Amino acid sequence: MYQTRIQIRTSGEGDIINITAALSDAVCTSGIQTGVLHLFVIGSTAALTTIEYEPGALADLRDALGRIAPVSAQYAHDARWGDGNGRSHVRAAILGPSLSIPVSEGKLLLGTWQQAILVELDIRQSRERMIVMTIIP
Amino acid sequence: MYQTRIQIRTSGEGDIINITAALSDAVCTSGIQTGVLHLFVIGSTAALTTIEYEPGALADLRDALGRIAPVSAQYAHDARWGDGNGRSHVRAAILGPSLSIPVSEGKLLLGTWQQAILVELDIRQSRERMIVMTIIP
Amino acid sequence: MYQTRIQIRTSGEGDIINITAALSDAVCTSGIQTGVLHLFVIGSTAALTTIEYEPGALADLRDALGRIAPVSAQYAHDARWGDGNGRSHVRAAILGPSLSIPVSEGKLLLGTWQQAILVELDIRQSRERMIVMTIIP
Repeated sequence: MYQTRIQIRTSGEGDIINITAALSDAVCTSGIQTGVLHLFVIGSTAALTTIEYEPGALADLRDALGRIAPVSAQYAHDARWGDGNGRSHVRAAILGPSLSIPVSEGKLLLGTWQQAILVELDIRQSRERMIVMTIIP
Repeated sequence: MYQTRIQIRTSGEGDIINITAALSDAVCTSGIQTGVLHLFVIGSTAALTTIEYEPGALADLRDALGRIAPVSAQYAHDARWGDGNGRSHVRAAILGPSLSIPVSEGKLLLGTWQQAILVELDIRQSRERMIVMTIIP
Repeated sequence: MYQTRIQIRTSGEGDIINITAALSDAVCTSGIQTGVLHLFVIGSTAALTTIEYEPGALADLRDALGRIAPVSAQYAHDARWGDGNGRSHVRAAILGPSLSIPVSEGKLLLGTWQQAILVELDIRQSRERMIVMTIIP
């Protein structure tokens, strides 16, 4: 069992960070040959998933999240707390905070065009995000 | 490896239960210091995720699920079986039945405002739900 | 730790394959009595989840994915690459590539009407998909 954390600075709502290289480094450092890499982002307004990391697909993902929880909708969270990030909470809950990827022969098993991403959904201009990585041997 | 089950009574469609305390208790009982807590809800009309557990955000999540699978839409499941819970199946499949959370120093790693939730999506007035917890050391 | 791969031929966009029997076989072969079965689909235009595997619910799931990422929307991915599968990428990122299911007494713990599925979201007529299964004891 190898557990570590990475901190990532995001630059506002809709920022999507390719975390694949950091994950591969952790797998390498762990020395684990066969297992599962588990990822979890701390906080309720960010999420993890995989996608082809190219600007078009990322823009399309943002559009789809805007259909699920539109900027123009009324949010009870905002009405109660005045936060303005009701949509962020909803989008994060639906995308989900956890992701896990198999490890084989000491490497992550991902498709050629498949990258692991951190999706910043909150509305602050900048935030420090913490991802916990656990590699289960 | 520590595996246990919890039963939770839900009170109808859209009921959202904060299960964080039950998870923390299981982690404590297990004695496991470092690992991953895996959760799975049995059944195809409930789901698990994390959210800030306050009534506004919960109402907003229900609204978003209603955009993905509206009450007013036609469901082939309902047409075939007369169940009336076609939307429940769709919402559950998209939110997903599994969630996993890291354990460190004998505690769950969650954000301050991030709670683990069971989302009841079925239309019966009351149901007993079973969640399987497995803590991987 | 038992890790294996299964290849599955899909027959175009919206094809949904019930993979439960293949998973049960792997659990049986592994001899593992208590643990977690982790699944991951390689590639960025397919996804895994659970559902009641009957044609009505499957059609309803396809409809909901069409609300999240409609065929009629404009996709930046398509504008850049001419692929025509922008919607496939978005739907796959939201449904997610990973799923995990508990194992108890040598069997998968699923509800009576709950099956594990591979959802083909890409637009090619036929594709070979690879799923990596890891059983964590």
